[in-house]
Amino acid sequence: MTHKLLMLPGDHVGPEIIAEADKLLRCLMADFGLDAELEYAHLGGCAVDAEGEPFPASTQRLAEESDALLLGAVGGPQWDGLERDRRPETGLLSIRSALGLFANLRPAMLFPELVDASSLRPDAVSGLDILIVRELTGGIYFGQPRGIRTREDGVREAFNTLVYGTDEIERIGRAAFEAAARRNGSLCSVDKANVLESSELWREVMESLAPAYPDVRLSHMYVDNAAMQLVRDPRQFDVLVTGNLFGDILSDCAAMLTGSIGMLPSASLDDRGRGLYEPVHGSAPDISGKGIANPLATLLSVAMMLRHSLDEGALADHVERAVGRVLADGHRTADLVSPGAEAIGTAAMGDAVVNAL
Amino acid sequence: MTHKLLMLPGDHVGPEIIAEADKLLRCLMADFGLDAELEYAHLGGCAVDAEGEPFPASTQRLAEESDALLLGAVGGPQWDGLERDRRPETGLLSIRSALGLFANLRPAMLFPELVDASSLRPDAVSGLDILIVRELTGGIYFGQPRGIRTREDGVREAFNTLVYGTDEIERIGRAAFEAAARRNGSLCSVDKANVLESSELWREVMESLAPAYPDVRLSHMYVDNAAMQLVRDPRQFDVLVTGNLFGDILSDCAAMLTGSIGMLPSASLDDRGRGLYEPVHGSAPDISGKGIANPLATLLSVAMMLRHSLDEGALADHVERAVGRVLADGHRTADLVSPGAEAIGTAAMGDAVVNAL
Ligand SMILES: CC(C)[C@H](C(=O)O)[C@@H](O)C(=O)O
Ligand SMILES: CC(C)[C@H](C(=O)O)[C@@H](O)C(=O)O
Repeated sequence: MTHKLLMLPGDHVGPEIIAEADKLLRCLMADFGLDAELEYAHLGGCAVDAEGEPFPASTQRLAEESDALLLGAVGGPQWDGLERDRRPETGLLSIRSALGLFANLRPAMLFPELVDASSLRPDAVSGLDILIVRELTGGIYFGQPRGIRTREDGVREAFNTLVYGTDEIERIGRAAFEAAARRNGSLCSVDKANVLESSELWREVMESLAPAYPDVRLSHMYVDNAAMQLVRDPRQFDVLVTGNLFGDILSDCAAMLTGSIGMLPSASLDDRGRGLYEPVHGSAPDISGKGIANPLATLLSVAMMLRHSLDEGALADHVERAVGRVLADGHRTADLVSPGAEAIGTAAMGDAVVNAL
Repeated sequence: MTHKLLMLPGDHVGPEIIAEADKLLRCLMADFGLDAELEYAHLGGCAVDAEGEPFPASTQRLAEESDALLLGAVGGPQWDGLERDRRPETGLLSIRSALGLFANLRPAMLFPELVDASSLRPDAVSGLDILIVRELTGGIYFGQPRGIRTREDGVREAFNTLVYGTDEIERIGRAAFEAAARRNGSLCSVDKANVLESSELWREVMESLAPAYPDVRLSHMYVDNAAMQLVRDPRQFDVLVTGNLFGDILSDCAAMLTGSIGMLPSASLDDRGRGLYEPVHGSAPDISGKGIANPLATLLSVAMMLRHSLDEGALADHVERAVGRVLADGHRTADLVSPGAEAIGTAAMGDAVVNAL
């Protein structure tokens, strides 16, 4: 059966890195038997410009018909002044919610060739390979009521609601236990149960799931301590599971520990294998249009897509090995290059990976 | 006028480190003209054990009569099973709220002698000296409504409210602008304004304050990016200001960057100079009773107390220099010692500082 893939280039460097993913996918289709067809649609700022809203109905229709989506990145200063509901970020939040993409998988791993790019000492970080499982369609990002109002005493106040039902906690918990079972069998759930009732319920539900996964050791950590432990000794973790907001903060912290944020892919999955895949780095307005963005996080996102949505684990391994080989051969984009060494551009890096296949 | 100081030893290593602060204060009273009297009271787990609640009325009365408070640390596993309203942490939250201690100052600085204790590369962290100003009596820690309820469809859900009024944002904003004006004149406000209305108002109020502080450069950063930037290049910051929950996470992250969390003091101030001072490390149940806890964060908290509540800036400098000298002389407690070198205990470290005065 032909896999239907939807490409969402998005803004700034988005189209530049998606062009390399297109190249890779067409190579996999031509030479490695991948049966897929590619469609394109707008999301984010480009969608606002072209169709007046960041997640147009036409994009939603194509998204719902597709088996997997690949996103470049959304956002940029030219859209920062817009109303909240027309901002590029709102498009991203809307597509996550509309497609029910509740399980956000964010691996943070250090590529051995890039250990010098980390601000951490090599002895604290080498070999790092952790996975953050972030709840992506609930919590304070979507909770009602929310808004800005004037109190009786005339003072304006703004409010948001952090809310989780046991059903939401259970399904992200299961996704995390399953991921931990496939890895080293250790799962740390991060919350703030000493202060928040929502975290109290989170912890209770995680505990209730544990007996069904006897091979996984479950532990709990407060979010402030987790931020410390990530800096002190990140390798103590295997899989971390947490809510939407804590996951946003901790996954970016963990990504930066590796020093190679231009290398890290992510997946956002629903409960039936559909997923949206994207690099964790953003749209990088400062370097867009120069042809120097690092496409490897996007190519590794293609690998995650092959594995999680297309049931093509062998091809995924193949892509990941090709990326490893390209690094081992010394190819580096500007973000990875050591002072003095020479950098190649986006397209040359994409070509190198295709050749290494 | 005699300063009234209230000592709150708290739990586990709390009493051990407070004993050294007592020693230091009595030396300042005997030999350096400090005019103060010390009272003692219970807070946290010890208060639950002695009086049935973590913040007893007797402690509140003494707290309200005092000019400044020094806290060891609260909490420990033996109280973890209690109901939320009898937990040691609840005592801490209650005293912050009852005394209106809205401005939490958390310096994160690297002592040159301890650069090897950081998990960051020396070139990323040496000379680090930043200040996190955290709002401490509002936000999601105290917002109503909150609780656990059963939805109409029978599913249990838990909820918390993140709420800030312009009055609360203004007063923490002023405290932060003033701190930045006394330092390098650079203030970064951290929020999640691309997702949360409460952050939108936060950003708007911070902007509205800026014209009154022409010598301070105000910038804004999303909290996920701030967590990344703290790891990547913490010295880009001078003063950071943020809400209660983000401040909890980021200040612990920043503290750990220094690698010397046993060295870091903090202050929680009201709007008239009263403050509660405490080390940022916790009650460390694993090492309590052994006489090996590092008292330096507590002694540096005494220095902050002298400066911020007692108007004794010269004495504060004196204490800080004494701590610096003790480190330069090579004295180390177990948490700071390099492998092979010899560690001294809590009391010996306290004596060393008093002698260095
Ligand atoms: C752009 C923003 C809304 C988004 C989020 O906070 O989820 C981003 O930071 C991310 O982590 O994907
Ligand atoms: C103990 C806990 C309630 C407290 C907080 O979250 O404020 C602590 O982490 C702190 O930062 O002082």
